[in-house]
Amino acid sequence: MREVFHDTLEDIQSRLVEISELVTEAIEKATKAFATGDVALAEEVIANDETIDNLVLTTDEVAIETLAMQQPVAHDLRVIITALRASASLERMGDLAEHIAQLVRQRYPERAIPKGLKSTFVRMGELDVEVARTLTQLLRTQNLTFATHIRDTDDDIDELHASVYERVLGDSFSGEIPHAIDATLASRYHERFADHAVSVAKKVVYLATGDWSGADDDAAEIEIVE
Amino acid sequence: MREVFHDTLEDIQSRLVEISELVTEAIEKATKAFATGDVALAEEVIANDETIDNLVLTTDEVAIETLAMQQPVAHDLRVIITALRASASLERMGDLAEHIAQLVRQRYPERAIPKGLKSTFVRMGELDVEVARTLTQLLRTQNLTFATHIRDTDDDIDELHASVYERVLGDSFSGEIPHAIDATLASRYHERFADHAVSVAKKVVYLATGDWSGADDDAAEIEIVE
Repeated sequence: MREVFHDTLEDIQSRLVEISELVTEAIEKATKAFATGDVALAEEVIANDETIDNLVLTTDEVAIETLAMQQPVAHDLRVIITALRASASLERMGDLAEHIAQLVRQRYPERAIPKGLKSTFVRMGELDVEVARTLTQLLRTQNLTFATHIRDTDDDIDELHASVYERVLGDSFSGEIPHAIDATLASRYHERFADHAVSVAKKVVYLATGDWSGADDDAAEIEIVE
Repeated sequence: MREVFHDTLEDIQSRLVEISELVTEAIEKATKAFATGDVALAEEVIANDETIDNLVLTTDEVAIETLAMQQPVAHDLRVIITALRASASLERMGDLAEHIAQLVRQRYPERAIPKGLKSTFVRMGELDVEVARTLTQLLRTQNLTFATHIRDTDDDIDELHASVYERVLGDSFSGEIPHAIDATLASRYHERFADHAVSVAKKVVYLATGDWSGADDDAAEIEIVE
């Protein structure tokens, strides 16, 4: 019985890794589509989000079933609690990659990246991909140095996010209202994607330490002061 | 021992009600400040968000402690699972009310509501307040007709959200880029606030029915097609 139980816990952890890999693939494709205007790639991201949603749903169901049937304690219990909170954040990360892809579809055949902001968004996209890859590593290894790296990268993304606002609101911006709106939403999606990764990373720290007080979700987000 | 346990479950449920009441107060004040430009009221919302965050944190801690010490089953277990997922959504609702208040502060002494959109945002604000009040009722009574009402009201908010985009992107919009950005962000904050309420409502349905498959968070959000 105990062996079956530990297989289940491993199963839950590898499901989270699998979801994180799918989210990584989604953000890679979404940011590439965003940079190039590749609408077929964008459609792929949009179509694949359901796979992520379904995997999140079944992972939650397994976690709840395990809680009910096995009544885990200590570290085993923390695996389940972490899974139940991390899965919701991973699901949102998939949604945010999908939103970036939806911007591509809406603007097609034009590019969704407003003029003058291409290098900023390419960089934000690269950093989001890095965050997602690091998150997969963190979930796989539970090596907490990956959690630190996610936080640091999130800080860099926050800075770029603030710079998009400054740019769009500044005199040098040559775009029209639709471009300003695209930039605002796209930047927010990129920034929120990384916030959710920070949130998952905090749960993995809780898994290792047993201290929930650093695991709650407040303060991941920055206020944009224009 | 069992009596202590049931006191704890009741304590967790009344904490969720209390958090929902604070969130209701936050969105009432934030939307009022947004409509009137009352920066002192906005500051109050911003300052009070910490109270919500702290209450969410302690509720999570009590829920986790109860899982570990009491190993609840069946309905009792669902109370804990619901609390652990609902608290995260309530925390985000508080953040979104805070974001609306931050827009007021950033624009002061100007009004944050762009010209021509006042009645739309006043209505969105009223509906968000209604959603929050209904959510408190749902958490207090677990009467699922309140869950249906929350979903219906969310549909109305989604429609208003779509209409803000149409308006801002249309030829008749007389505002500048900063006004368009304010409208876009404010509308998104109002819409996401209600999405999170739908998400909490789904968890309360799970609490009543034991079926998780309708409780996951996908599909609460609409895609804006411009």
